[in-house]
Amino acid sequence: MNFSKEFTSAILIIGNEILSGRTVDKNISFISRWLGELGISVEEARIIPDKEVMIIDNINELRKKYQYVFTTGGIGPTHDDITSESIAKAFDKKYEYNKEAYSILEKYYTNSEFNESRKKMARMPDGASLIYNKNGSAPAFYIENVFVLPGIPSYVEIMLPALESLFKKGDRIISISVDARLRESTIAHDLSEIQNNYKEVDIGSYPYSNEKIFGTTIVLRSIDSIKILSCKKEVEEMVRKHSNL
Amino acid sequence: MNFSKEFTSAILIIGNEILSGRTVDKNISFISRWLGELGISVEEARIIPDKEVMIIDNINELRKKYQYVFTTGGIGPTHDDITSESIAKAFDKKYEYNKEAYSILEKYYTNSEFNESRKKMARMPDGASLIYNKNGSAPAFYIENVFVLPGIPSYVEIMLPALESLFKKGDRIISISVDARLRESTIAHDLSEIQNNYKEVDIGSYPYSNEKIFGTTIVLRSIDSIKILSCKKEVEEMVRKHSNL
Repeated sequence: MNFSKEFTSAILIIGNEILSGRTVDKNISFISRWLGELGISVEEARIIPDKEVMIIDNINELRKKYQYVFTTGGIGPTHDDITSESIAKAFDKKYEYNKEAYSILEKYYTNSEFNESRKKMARMPDGASLIYNKNGSAPAFYIENVFVLPGIPSYVEIMLPALESLFKKGDRIISISVDARLRESTIAHDLSEIQNNYKEVDIGSYPYSNEKIFGTTIVLRSIDSIKILSCKKEVEEMVRKHSNL
Repeated sequence: MNFSKEFTSAILIIGNEILSGRTVDKNISFISRWLGELGISVEEARIIPDKEVMIIDNINELRKKYQYVFTTGGIGPTHDDITSESIAKAFDKKYEYNKEAYSILEKYYTNSEFNESRKKMARMPDGASLIYNKNGSAPAFYIENVFVLPGIPSYVEIMLPALESLFKKGDRIISISVDARLRESTIAHDLSEIQNNYKEVDIGSYPYSNEKIFGTTIVLRSIDSIKILSCKKEVEEMVRKHSNL
């Protein structure tokens, strides 16, 4: 992305199930669109296994490189949930019970249900702030510029909007799509010329095809609402020209 | 993953459309499952924008770190397709017409269709070998241990199997799932004990829920067909025990 450099972020997906191909990640797309609305661009996303050294190394690299980091996965009660402890290590903080999180879980579960595994979900890096889950029990947390979310997409979708007030808002990124029933290579030359004339607009070109239908979706993205509309007009005229050939 | 260390790989997805959240990536899941069948573990995946410096840096980091690297996206005819040229720079190779690729495209298109944008798809790093696309026109390529594939999932699915003979086969990774209609935190303690007894098996625990149904999928992965079956038996007994409580 070539705009809104002021607000950058990275997404770190933690979980063997995504890397093995068992599960298709849905969180990157949801988090990215949410951040786009806030004018925060996602500069990169990474998917890594539940492996302590990789979590620590990636957290420490990304939190220095970007303004915000969002992680998903590995904060549940089972043995393979090692995200919280690894992030404590990355920040060189103690990994201990967060009193408020403990008390939320204590109220949610009956005495006999509140076993060691469930208690583990209240352990966080010292100094972490809670991210509440209004539909579930266990809260997530953030520490400095790192936001640590669960892996289940429906929980992420509930928790993220509650965070909105924390973020400095950049200029909202406007996105407009133009559909062309033309092969990408037919319009490539003209599209490139339009891109050269509109430095403020980021033009992407995405071919699609299934059976006998083929076409190209042209996506314009910009924070400049005047330029993007004028660019859209030129793209539409160009598409019309080629469609009538 | 804790097995088959001999054969490691990384996946690099190149494309603004994935990072903006417009498109949900499907290639990571497909490529990972295909590699798992070959006994090659995916150690990490990254998604980066169509930005030269990021492509070069990531290619040069990943190709040294892992035995194989697979990229998708950015090899089409438009101005935002900069993967091939960036990879030539990463390898410090000339970016030029591959004769065989040029001749394939020349046959595929009529004279008037074969414009500069389409010719661009025949430009590759010097020394690249072709990956053929039996259903389409433009071939992809590989250079040393880096396999450069298109972004369209249906093309990736056609092209990958044709590569199989190139890979040294590791031990096939066996994967078995056990479904438990129990909360993850109910079985966490016992599951952790089973994991401790089976170092050769990688046990993952994935909660799911929708409306009023909730449960946990327990996924066992191993290259040891005896141990994984015995581990599966213990997991099933444990699940039965908790289901009857």
